[in-house]
Amino acid sequence: MSGKVICVGLGPGDPDLMSVKADRLIRGAGHVAFFRKAGRKGQARQIVEGMLHPKATEYAMEYPVTTEIHFSDPEYNRILSEFYADWADRLAALAKTDDVIVLCEGDPFFYGSFMHLHSRLQGRTEVEIVPGITGMSGCWTATDQPITWGDDVLTVLMATLPEEELTERAKGSDALVFMKIGRNLPKLRRALKAAGRLDAAWLVERGTMPGQTVQKLSEIDDIVPYFAIAIVHGHGRRP
Amino acid sequence: MSGKVICVGLGPGDPDLMSVKADRLIRGAGHVAFFRKAGRKGQARQIVEGMLHPKATEYAMEYPVTTEIHFSDPEYNRILSEFYADWADRLAALAKTDDVIVLCEGDPFFYGSFMHLHSRLQGRTEVEIVPGITGMSGCWTATDQPITWGDDVLTVLMATLPEEELTERAKGSDALVFMKIGRNLPKLRRALKAAGRLDAAWLVERGTMPGQTVQKLSEIDDIVPYFAIAIVHGHGRRP
Ligand SMILES: C[S@@+](CC[C@H](N)C(=O)[O-])C[C@H]1O[C@@H](n2cnc3c(N)ncnc32)[C@H](O)[C@@H]1O
Ligand SMILES: C[S@@+](CC[C@H](N)C(=O)[O-])C[C@H]1O[C@@H](n2cnc3c(N)ncnc32)[C@H](O)[C@@H]1O
Repeated sequence: MSGKVICVGLGPGDPDLMSVKADRLIRGAGHVAFFRKAGRKGQARQIVEGMLHPKATEYAMEYPVTTEIHFSDPEYNRILSEFYADWADRLAALAKTDDVIVLCEGDPFFYGSFMHLHSRLQGRTEVEIVPGITGMSGCWTATDQPITWGDDVLTVLMATLPEEELTERAKGSDALVFMKIGRNLPKLRRALKAAGRLDAAWLVERGTMPGQTVQKLSEIDDIVPYFAIAIVHGHGRRP
Repeated sequence: MSGKVICVGLGPGDPDLMSVKADRLIRGAGHVAFFRKAGRKGQARQIVEGMLHPKATEYAMEYPVTTEIHFSDPEYNRILSEFYADWADRLAALAKTDDVIVLCEGDPFFYGSFMHLHSRLQGRTEVEIVPGITGMSGCWTATDQPITWGDDVLTVLMATLPEEELTERAKGSDALVFMKIGRNLPKLRRALKAAGRLDAAWLVERGTMPGQTVQKLSEIDDIVPYFAIAIVHGHGRRP
């Protein structure tokens, strides 16, 4: 008898937007693992609230605290690498006898953390990925406008990139999606302004989740939550 | 009593990858509309085979035949525009009393045809969009490799763009997705070669559907079906 590790994309947040397959796998799971920040409930875990079998065993994979270390510091890499290696070992051990479900926000292969386990599990156990609706799909749907038309070019950018790069890329693409905004908001706002795209930019916080907001990015000077995406819609060919 | 038009994203093709909400809406629908080419069954309709209520009324929205007209010809635009206006009228009339479900492949607001009805239905009837898993998510999952890591830039391009533009953009992005390939395959292959990305490119045909294939793009000289996506994976920061 041998099991596998199944990473299940949960979609943007609304449990109703999970796939039929994800819903079935999660309700039937005996072992359920998920990433979370230390001391938090964890977004992925929260999405499946009320869905887990009463006898399911949960594995909270708590990220090591690295806030004091810049990600360019080799020490940062070492700590994270050890964390992923450790959990890869534990999941591989469990999968010797049982299936293990790993919960992942959005679509696992799209900027997801599971890939760091995926690469470390290769050749050790069977791994299956169930795709999910991305956070960005949830967010552009919330704006009630199509993101792309005809042959629009869409560029997806992390707001962690340098300001000049954000500016140049914002100039050179029809439609734009920015993720990982948080404290990069002032930089992102300057880049969009310099590119002449600020007035067309929207910010969606907690797309499809309770407390979802859709605002013009130019009108925000608040702190932005982790689950926030900025969007500039394309305007391609339309008969 | 008044209904609404609900455009439901079906995901990449496997019915098990439809959202729980899509599944429920489709099974309960009294009126189901979908686009298709004249004389075909229609991909969207095929995905929901066996799911529709026996008493559901179906509306096949058959694209007018435009193969002899180039899309830069104003006549092309006129014919398509009339087609969309006509169906917007019919769906708005139905929604006066009942809900109407419109089936849409992948995610409706991501290069979908429904947007041409969406814009024409504004202010006439309530319209709701249910996001779906995109075809590209289904395709990169099929390659069994993450599409993006860390702060990789992802660019989504239609293979209908001019060769020089495809080349320049292929040079300037970490990860790449190309859609609408069909007879643009030779052009796309030349552009990827010129950009030095051909050997890293994969072609996924019918992602998540029966007959799915995953091949190195450099090894294909066949005709490519409509449901085909080319993928170049990013290789960003990885602890
Ligand atoms: C590490 S990435 C994970 C992306 C995820 N795998 C996906 O497919 O959407 C985290 C970023 O996703 C974005 N995000 C994901 N879901 C979101 C939602 N429902 N609302 C707003 N932002 C979201 C935020 O920008 C956040 O910083
Ligand atoms: C008009 S666009 C529609 C995109 C759709 N709304 C989505 O979210 O994926 C049609 C293109 O989608 C791509 N496509 C969609 N689903 C696919 C699948 N399952 N396998 C391969 N290509 C797919 C093909 O490149 C095709 O030319």
